[in-house]
Amino acid sequence: MPTATTKGYLQLDRIPSEPIAPLISRRLVAGEKGMLVFWSMKAGAHAAAHHHPHEQIFWVLKGTMDFRLGDEKRTCRAGDMGVIPGGVEHEAWFPEDTEVLDVFSPPREDFLAGGPPAYMRKG
Amino acid sequence: MPTATTKGYLQLDRIPSEPIAPLISRRLVAGEKGMLVFWSMKAGAHAAAHHHPHEQIFWVLKGTMDFRLGDEKRTCRAGDMGVIPGGVEHEAWFPEDTEVLDVFSPPREDFLAGGPPAYMRKG
Repeated sequence: MPTATTKGYLQLDRIPSEPIAPLISRRLVAGEKGMLVFWSMKAGAHAAAHHHPHEQIFWVLKGTMDFRLGDEKRTCRAGDMGVIPGGVEHEAWFPEDTEVLDVFSPPREDFLAGGPPAYMRKG
Repeated sequence: MPTATTKGYLQLDRIPSEPIAPLISRRLVAGEKGMLVFWSMKAGAHAAAHHHPHEQIFWVLKGTMDFRLGDEKRTCRAGDMGVIPGGVEHEAWFPEDTEVLDVFSPPREDFLAGGPPAYMRKG
């Protein structure tokens, strides 16, 4: 489900939710320079270790995300955030149903093209 | 109150809230490439017409924001969003207490330096 870069007004609940893996779906809002990704993770979801050149800032909206940023592990809950510079390896586990907003700068080209990244295929 | 670019873990409710105008305060989370700004606007706040080269994506979290994007006005409530390309004039009015997240790419250098932008001094 390719997603276009957007301009103007949007409503989050009208953005199609794209199934990514059995336990993972996402909604995308992409500008030319930044991208917001609203993740819905079901209990048991896992984003395997990965890194990318894009800067990523996460904000946990609901639930629990066990996160590894480089070699520092933390349990993150609603209101917890993180700034992941480009190139830094990270990994995430979701022991319960969880919602997270990721902000990527620049936008993830692979997400605009649609489909799961390799590190989420097992979901 | 200058704010440093950040790396690693953060908690939103531990980020200092910076008073910007009598009716406006904000919390900043800044990476090198993107910045999240959590605005708390009191009823009656106004961000006067302005534009900047930074791309801006807004997400209304709570309350009501009457927004003008170019020549298109809309009343935005929780879940409403907008993608404002760099250079496009916009203006916002807050008829009730309202919370909005703005994502700027690249980060607003003037916000990192601290203090109100000219278009918010009357708040």
